[in-house]
Amino acid sequence: MRDFDENNITQSVIERFANTPDPRLKTILNSLVTHLHDFIRDVDLTFDEWQTAIKFLTRTGQQCTDTRQEFILLSDTLGVSMLVDAVNHRQRNGATQTTVLGPFFVHEAPALPLGANIAVNAEGEPLYANGVIRSTNGKPLANATVDVWQCNKDGFYDVQLSPQLNLRASFKTDQQGRFYFWSILPTSYPIPYDGPVGDLLTATNRHPYRPAHLHFMISAPEHETLVTHVFVKGDQYLDSDAVFGVKNSLIEEFKQHAPGTAPDGKQMPHSWRSFTYDFSLKAEHENLDHHP
Amino acid sequence: MRDFDENNITQSVIERFANTPDPRLKTILNSLVTHLHDFIRDVDLTFDEWQTAIKFLTRTGQQCTDTRQEFILLSDTLGVSMLVDAVNHRQRNGATQTTVLGPFFVHEAPALPLGANIAVNAEGEPLYANGVIRSTNGKPLANATVDVWQCNKDGFYDVQLSPQLNLRASFKTDQQGRFYFWSILPTSYPIPYDGPVGDLLTATNRHPYRPAHLHFMISAPEHETLVTHVFVKGDQYLDSDAVFGVKNSLIEEFKQHAPGTAPDGKQMPHSWRSFTYDFSLKAEHENLDHHP
Repeated sequence: MRDFDENNITQSVIERFANTPDPRLKTILNSLVTHLHDFIRDVDLTFDEWQTAIKFLTRTGQQCTDTRQEFILLSDTLGVSMLVDAVNHRQRNGATQTTVLGPFFVHEAPALPLGANIAVNAEGEPLYANGVIRSTNGKPLANATVDVWQCNKDGFYDVQLSPQLNLRASFKTDQQGRFYFWSILPTSYPIPYDGPVGDLLTATNRHPYRPAHLHFMISAPEHETLVTHVFVKGDQYLDSDAVFGVKNSLIEEFKQHAPGTAPDGKQMPHSWRSFTYDFSLKAEHENLDHHP
Repeated sequence: MRDFDENNITQSVIERFANTPDPRLKTILNSLVTHLHDFIRDVDLTFDEWQTAIKFLTRTGQQCTDTRQEFILLSDTLGVSMLVDAVNHRQRNGATQTTVLGPFFVHEAPALPLGANIAVNAEGEPLYANGVIRSTNGKPLANATVDVWQCNKDGFYDVQLSPQLNLRASFKTDQQGRFYFWSILPTSYPIPYDGPVGDLLTATNRHPYRPAHLHFMISAPEHETLVTHVFVKGDQYLDSDAVFGVKNSLIEEFKQHAPGTAPDGKQMPHSWRSFTYDFSLKAEHENLDHHP
């Protein structure tokens, strides 16, 4: 085949993928090529614009390091991450709503005992977090893994500042499915905007802020792993989250408390906060919207 | 706005681009988001597949260097580059057909006098290339710039081998619009396949070969710059070019000659080749398919 033009090239590229051994890869590539070509025909992309796109994608890849994932930021700010989340979690059946993973999860978070303070020498308003992990049938899940990570009072995650991990931990629930730990109040913060994704936000007059939240990744045997946030009620960016991640059911009041005694008996000389959020995990046999 | 789902997120992302000052950027982003989201809904992309895509794009960016452009290879192998070429060159009106730029053009090619040999200490069958640059009205274009670049007899471009430029040059046509130079016969070659694009070709059972060709970029005042190739007739990959670049009108016979005297009087002790290809450039006022 020769003499490709705008009318025949899409089918010709798809035919070139005809011998792909993995049928799922073939399906994905055929669809990708179809939609990508439709986009180019739709806007009559110029050669200069194509060059700009090539440079933008190259810069995006080269901005990535072990602790920064610019392509996830791009996916997040284009609503792609939340859409992927949505098509994979159509039927919740009472399970906690999901939201984006984000670029700051790390696999090496320290395993800490329940009640520990995940804020090591970090300034900020003390925060007591607690809740119960249950299966959607209501049964508490003992020994579930609760990974938590959050920003500091200035809006930065540990990996953005130093190799020293902080404000993240991996807990195991107790026999009643409970988790509880100390931290500090997170703040709303801009996603990293000193790279190509920041340039795109600037060029489109979009702000880079996310409303304050804690990240949770919760897993238990025979249950679907839950990736979600708990958002701080009242945050000014709840309606304009740069990554489209907010769901009303994930917003919780972070109660203010006067100095005194905390639920675990700790004496608090200054004011402090707390929130309670109970999570429901979907049993794997409930996963009816999985596509083979 | 909160609680984004697969039904409302696309419109919500588009609304977030509402204040983009540049109307063309706004048009492009709105279309991109629409088609990208359609792709994700079409295949119900899983979270693992999304992670694979993020890693693939990151690797693609990080494979790029000053002399290697992996995103152009990706664009080429998905037919995107040829489609961009097609939508920008709908009406040729007798002008030479265009094809992909490819990743190996450099701006610093040496300016050489007509008749020079662009192959510095490069083994291979000698090749005499010549032709005339004309406007589509038939008038020869004197002092037109003819950039040429090609691979060596083993299928490698200079920039893949060393910092020393070779097998590329920039010529100026003479008063009759003629160009002529010596080189060596190019060969069919694989695009670089030791990176993510090569992995994709392997996973889809596609070969990475391009049929033998010389690249030309030709410019003249008040004419549209022409980016094209001249392909070697008879090459085994003309019907399966990895980047979909072949057009019948760009294939030329590279004639074989016995030892003897070349057209410029040069004595040839061994067999040699030659081709003649005349190029037609489109005057800028003819550019009727330009979109404002």
